[in-house]
Amino acid sequence: MSKPIDWKVDASDGKARAGTLRTRRSVIETPVFMPVGTQGALKGVRFEWLENEMDARIILGNTYHLFLRPGVDAIKQFGGLHRFTSWERSFLTDSGGFQVFSLTDLRKLTEEGVEFRSHLDGSKRFLSPEVSMEVQAALDSEIVMVFDECPPGDAGHEQTRSSLELTARWAARSKKRFNELQSGAPASGGASDLSGKQALFGIIQGAGHLDLRRESLDRTVEIGFDGYAIGGLSVGEEKAVMYDVLDHLAHQMPEDAPRYLMGVGTPEDLLEGVEKGVDMFDCVIPTRNGRTGSAFTSKGKLNIRNARFALSDEPLDPGCSCSVCKRYSLGYLRHLYQAGEMNASIMLSHHNVAFFLDLMRRARAAIIAGEYSQFKRTTLENLRASTPESGV
Amino acid sequence: MSKPIDWKVDASDGKARAGTLRTRRSVIETPVFMPVGTQGALKGVRFEWLENEMDARIILGNTYHLFLRPGVDAIKQFGGLHRFTSWERSFLTDSGGFQVFSLTDLRKLTEEGVEFRSHLDGSKRFLSPEVSMEVQAALDSEIVMVFDECPPGDAGHEQTRSSLELTARWAARSKKRFNELQSGAPASGGASDLSGKQALFGIIQGAGHLDLRRESLDRTVEIGFDGYAIGGLSVGEEKAVMYDVLDHLAHQMPEDAPRYLMGVGTPEDLLEGVEKGVDMFDCVIPTRNGRTGSAFTSKGKLNIRNARFALSDEPLDPGCSCSVCKRYSLGYLRHLYQAGEMNASIMLSHHNVAFFLDLMRRARAAIIAGEYSQFKRTTLENLRASTPESGV
Repeated sequence: MSKPIDWKVDASDGKARAGTLRTRRSVIETPVFMPVGTQGALKGVRFEWLENEMDARIILGNTYHLFLRPGVDAIKQFGGLHRFTSWERSFLTDSGGFQVFSLTDLRKLTEEGVEFRSHLDGSKRFLSPEVSMEVQAALDSEIVMVFDECPPGDAGHEQTRSSLELTARWAARSKKRFNELQSGAPASGGASDLSGKQALFGIIQGAGHLDLRRESLDRTVEIGFDGYAIGGLSVGEEKAVMYDVLDHLAHQMPEDAPRYLMGVGTPEDLLEGVEKGVDMFDCVIPTRNGRTGSAFTSKGKLNIRNARFALSDEPLDPGCSCSVCKRYSLGYLRHLYQAGEMNASIMLSHHNVAFFLDLMRRARAAIIAGEYSQFKRTTLENLRASTPESGV
Repeated sequence: MSKPIDWKVDASDGKARAGTLRTRRSVIETPVFMPVGTQGALKGVRFEWLENEMDARIILGNTYHLFLRPGVDAIKQFGGLHRFTSWERSFLTDSGGFQVFSLTDLRKLTEEGVEFRSHLDGSKRFLSPEVSMEVQAALDSEIVMVFDECPPGDAGHEQTRSSLELTARWAARSKKRFNELQSGAPASGGASDLSGKQALFGIIQGAGHLDLRRESLDRTVEIGFDGYAIGGLSVGEEKAVMYDVLDHLAHQMPEDAPRYLMGVGTPEDLLEGVEKGVDMFDCVIPTRNGRTGSAFTSKGKLNIRNARFALSDEPLDPGCSCSVCKRYSLGYLRHLYQAGEMNASIMLSHHNVAFFLDLMRRARAAIIAGEYSQFKRTTLENLRASTPESGV
């Protein structure tokens, strides 16, 4: 039986990899940044821009949010997330676990799953490996994530181990229910050498404990997935902890499957992650920062509120070729932000997403050219160059 | 000396006119709806959409808002509103008078002008015919409006007459200062048979008093302007009053100049105005309603919050060819609105503006075909058809 996705490494440079991930709906060149369409839309950025200008091939959808609203029945009625949203390229959906643990209270965690109160209306809801797989099957994303428990970044060894054990048992249950659902599901999408079904990624936990990370990796690989993710980083721990985990873990993950670092991060984090062997990233930073007036540029972050931009006819980033940088000045964008115009959020979010996508494209080119270390060094130097005076 | 704008009537049908207004920056086919870019941007809709998809040829800028922020010095520094905003087609700027009278308090009205407190920071500011002309010269709009006083919609005869007298004196002062500023200004824009300077429109006041409207018209024409506007309607009076004034006034306005109905209105108002001889309209309704979840369609207004749209895969308006209607379903747009996603505002505003622009294009075609009465009747019937059940 053919596989749901196809993965090949096009080039390596040290531990960094340039790969090609094909799903039934799109061809994704890695390393790749996946913009987050939390509730079925990328905040402030219409799909037309993502497709035509930025050429994003895959975005995220959040199972927790879509499970609560519009709900599984509505999504099924529309025939899945693609038809509901009109985004016809690939979707990766998370399992809902992370949001349950970070957004809700009154949680009741059992072996079976987790009962929680909706942050929208306080109603009692329940998610488990089985339910998460069922919701993600209804969403019909290309890449499904196992339902895991994510311990706090500062969890002790014992707490982390017991969470890891639960995650391993949930991973096995996720895979079982996933397989049942796939066997009954009709194939969809276009690539004829693929199965047309969904792919399932496992998640490695273990917080900052390297021995537990290694153990989680082994147990996850033993179960066997189409791809492997590193969860539970960028959840409040020190940067050094994240880089340390990545250093030890990423290159030990299976070579013949994509490696995905969940919920990370800044441009610096992405460059570090790529160097350590990560292929896929996602984060809300570009749009969230865009809405609060913060722009990522090749010379570091800038805060559009800064008075020194008031009369500037320079673009956000002279090194960026996105439609915002080609047309609009710092002075104009600052004016829109100060005036409370949502067009400021729209345009800063647009630029930030374009910047992240472009950064990963340039990383890929550097890997293929065998110049990743130099690329990373130069890029980081520039990113850090003007931050102190940029008013952030 | 050549004129700043060129106006010709292409076709008439009853009192309705199809015309062509050429400015130094664009060719505007009328009747036309002018979207309002209050603070130098159309709320939620990027200029790229306005240019490439909707092909809007002229938008408004608000002198009051731009005067306060970013201020005249900043606008001058950028070389005018076009360069500041990157909108290179035509701008019409209002005089600031209407906002001073509707947004500020602690006003002190004298023969000289009006002192007021900024709604932004409470600082004392001053606008007069001369200052307004100077600000609009700095903005470098294609069409400048005289500085007028706008009495309340229910103003009595005496109050209205004295306001009208003041407006007439201010109109003469506006023209004097405008001419001084134009004589010193360099020409800009492309059309070689035009002067490259700004055009000035006079404003007819008189509230609901037909005799005063007639008097105001005569006095305004006597001063002489490049175009004529009807002010002080849609400011709280009954619809019947507005239609009555338009019935008596519009067709008596000079035939050889464009006629502009300020701040109006709904699709119904536009169709009525066109029938009575109006060429130009502006209103914030399409974007304001878009932000509150209300969409204009060929079958009437609809409220996107309505539960009956939750599972609908129909577009906002099957009769609309805008990029929102071609792609997104009612169910998806409702979901975005309910979820508080700004993309709902973005897409509803987009559709509404496209709808207004298209309505005027279809009105123009009907006038040229000599079928305006029938077009208006049919369109109004449809607009009113489903409103009761649309949940507004």
